[in-house]
Amino acid sequence: ARRCARIVNSGPFDVAIVAVIVVNAIVLGIETYPHLGTARPVLGWVEMVFRAVFVTEIVIRVLAHGRRPQDFFRRGWNVFDLAVIAAIFIPGLHGDPALLRVLRVARVVRLVRFSPGLRTIVTALLRSLPGVGGFLALAMVTLYVYGMLGWLLFRDVYPEAYGDIGKSLLTLFVLLSLENLPDLIAQGADHSPWAVVYYVSYVLIAVNLLLNILIAVIVNSMEE
Amino acid sequence: ARRCARIVNSGPFDVAIVAVIVVNAIVLGIETYPHLGTARPVLGWVEMVFRAVFVTEIVIRVLAHGRRPQDFFRRGWNVFDLAVIAAIFIPGLHGDPALLRVLRVARVVRLVRFSPGLRTIVTALLRSLPGVGGFLALAMVTLYVYGMLGWLLFRDVYPEAYGDIGKSLLTLFVLLSLENLPDLIAQGADHSPWAVVYYVSYVLIAVNLLLNILIAVIVNSMEE
Amino acid sequence: ARRCARIVNSGPFDVAIVAVIVVNAIVLGIETYPHLGTARPVLGWVEMVFRAVFVTEIVIRVLAHGRRPQDFFRRGWNVFDLAVIAAIFIPGLHGDPALLRVLRVARVVRLVRFSPGLRTIVTALLRSLPGVGGFLALAMVTLYVYGMLGWLLFRDVYPEAYGDIGKSLLTLFVLLSLENLPDLIAQGADHSPWAVVYYVSYVLIAVNLLLNILIAVIVNSMEE
Amino acid sequence: ARRCARIVNSGPFDVAIVAVIVVNAIVLGIETYPHLGTARPVLGWVEMVFRAVFVTEIVIRVLAHGRRPQDFFRRGWNVFDLAVIAAIFIPGLHGDPALLRVLRVARVVRLVRFSPGLRTIVTALLRSLPGVGGFLALAMVTLYVYGMLGWLLFRDVYPEAYGDIGKSLLTLFVLLSLENLPDLIAQGADHSPWAVVYYVSYVLIAVNLLLNILIAVIVNSMEE
Ligand code: NA
Ligand code: NA
Repeated sequence: ARRCARIVNSGPFDVAIVAVIVVNAIVLGIETYPHLGTARPVLGWVEMVFRAVFVTEIVIRVLAHGRRPQDFFRRGWNVFDLAVIAAIFIPGLHGDPALLRVLRVARVVRLVRFSPGLRTIVTALLRSLPGVGGFLALAMVTLYVYGMLGWLLFRDVYPEAYGDIGKSLLTLFVLLSLENLPDLIAQGADHSPWAVVYYVSYVLIAVNLLLNILIAVIVNSMEE
Repeated sequence: ARRCARIVNSGPFDVAIVAVIVVNAIVLGIETYPHLGTARPVLGWVEMVFRAVFVTEIVIRVLAHGRRPQDFFRRGWNVFDLAVIAAIFIPGLHGDPALLRVLRVARVVRLVRFSPGLRTIVTALLRSLPGVGGFLALAMVTLYVYGMLGWLLFRDVYPEAYGDIGKSLLTLFVLLSLENLPDLIAQGADHSPWAVVYYVSYVLIAVNLLLNILIAVIVNSMEE
Repeated sequence: ARRCARIVNSGPFDVAIVAVIVVNAIVLGIETYPHLGTARPVLGWVEMVFRAVFVTEIVIRVLAHGRRPQDFFRRGWNVFDLAVIAAIFIPGLHGDPALLRVLRVARVVRLVRFSPGLRTIVTALLRSLPGVGGFLALAMVTLYVYGMLGWLLFRDVYPEAYGDIGKSLLTLFVLLSLENLPDLIAQGADHSPWAVVYYVSYVLIAVNLLLNILIAVIVNSMEE
Repeated sequence: ARRCARIVNSGPFDVAIVAVIVVNAIVLGIETYPHLGTARPVLGWVEMVFRAVFVTEIVIRVLAHGRRPQDFFRRGWNVFDLAVIAAIFIPGLHGDPALLRVLRVARVVRLVRFSPGLRTIVTALLRSLPGVGGFLALAMVTLYVYGMLGWLLFRDVYPEAYGDIGKSLLTLFVLLSLENLPDLIAQGADHSPWAVVYYVSYVLIAVNLLLNILIAVIVNSMEE
């Protein structure tokens, strides 16, 4: 157990696992190309090697906790690791190649645990949410009200964009990127004189809200 | 009256009204989907329940002011609430389902009054306007001058975009998002050698102005 | 002369001239709509009134300098005013309605002189240029090098976008807005394996430069 | 040698070389226009003059180091200059006009060495990279995971955008500009109910990451 703990806390152990994950990511990428020919079975054998390495990693991590293996489950990342590595051995899964591949891709997410910097960033991203919570609530009320108004104005003339509240909200969410603004204004102006008022006011309010979210995040970051 | 005042100032009263408004918003959303079948009359009954709840809310709020019910009208939100809730009982409205629905959607805007955070943000948004007033005036002069020049240059070759000053201003407002820039330059370059100069100078000036508005808002926010 | 000087420095004089310029702008806007019918000759008479008012304004401004009318020309705005107002009386101009209209639109630019805020902003915009001069020079070298490379790579397959250095520079300037990125990448990837490297590296460098210009301007603004 | 050192360190030497490089850039630009007619041979002679000037420049720079010409190679820019100027005399090159032109365009990059401001900016740009390294690593993991998921979801229905991991990554890189968002959502929503979840979550995560990179760069700049 002590030897396992020493291995887990050593730099070379982390470097080796990171290297294997990166090679695993590259192999998964190569598999997406068609016409691999004779290389395809080789990649199958390589996948077996990856499974062996990751199972060994998990076993060492569990053993490192010595006589209290339940401590292993105290860290969220350990649970994620075990779930991702173990799920691949559930027999029923092999009938569903898409889910199998999702599990193999999920291994790449494990890279985040090996970098203290990445962990800090993920925590910082999550921590910045409450500071902009009020703006997000206001943005949701704005989206909802404009979604209902858009459904009232355009449901008959433009059903694929405003046919129900779900489609309206998606259209207005995409409009936050301003990408479909010229098309929507040109389309709407043909059918209702209110379309220009509707889109111009929405864009002004939405840009103003997004700008204030940006400023709130910048000001929060600087205070830290 | 005192009991009403105690109810109005209590947390559970606000929570209950917020919950009813949120459920109301969801019901309004469900109504936008076609093919509801037998659920449609149920939603009609639910709307009656909402009206009863909101009328009771307003009555309690008015009674909370005791012998001086006129104080109720001192807060803008109270006036907005009363107008939105009462207008639905005007008999003539029921011939116009669109206006009726607008009134029901307006209830969702009432969510803002229940969150001190949202109220602060709305006030902050309005207060930031004078700080950028000079830039907005300059932006309007720029839009106007380029609108007139665009009408002079392109009114004959591109009437749907520059046929009169109103269309020109709308085209240039949308151009602030840069979305139609490639199309407009390609279209204009075919007809006038001045088109490239016109669009490039407009984009440089407009982006410069928007950038300065952004900076003015950031600097103002940091001083507070 | 003293009376003139008193008039020029009084608030009501400025307010009156600003009001006339705004009405002038509205009249110019109305003239862009076709089918004005009997209103058209009225607008002609209104234009004569504007000319009389602006000539009177200039005469009062010159007289305000008393015995040293040459001082009038010391302020740039006075020279601009005189040129814009006087040029309309050059007889040859009336054969060119477009130039005549440009002169009438130029009067609206005079609004800027009446607002100290606007003058400050225009000066601030011009003053921020040297601070970002290095970035602009670097941006120009980048544009030039990518323009030449784009001409080498795509002049035969996409002559309307890369046919000569002028077209290449315009294409890359518009690409700074990222609007034509999907189209250009899709178009280029069909013809050269280098297209993806070309566009991805250009976008990364250009966005990096624009971001640094933004930061330089923000940091400069905060130091003031 | 001393005279050469004095020349190299003098202002007029730098100004003259910068002028020749700018004229060289203009000549290269003129050469991209077809139908030059009799001007074409003149431009050939002008190129010979440029070569003579740049060879003389390098010789003077080497001589300026006196008895220790190897010191010339200590500065990276000197090596770049020598490579760019000398490579044009390699005889085999003249069969490949594209490579020849790349070498001539590379001379324009030499402008950067003459401006201390530009050198500072280039160093600053490179120095800001480590500060955002964590975000870039997180962005790469995000791109990779969404690239694999996109390949799983859309490889059959949209092979030109998601046919292999390379195409998926390019599609998602372009999606960082949000330009193809409306098209991709419209295209994907026809084939899989997961498309909306996929794109909305990707856009939210990617914009959040880009925003945090922007803030990290601003905060770093202000601390300096
Ligand atoms: Na865009
Ligand atoms: Na676009």
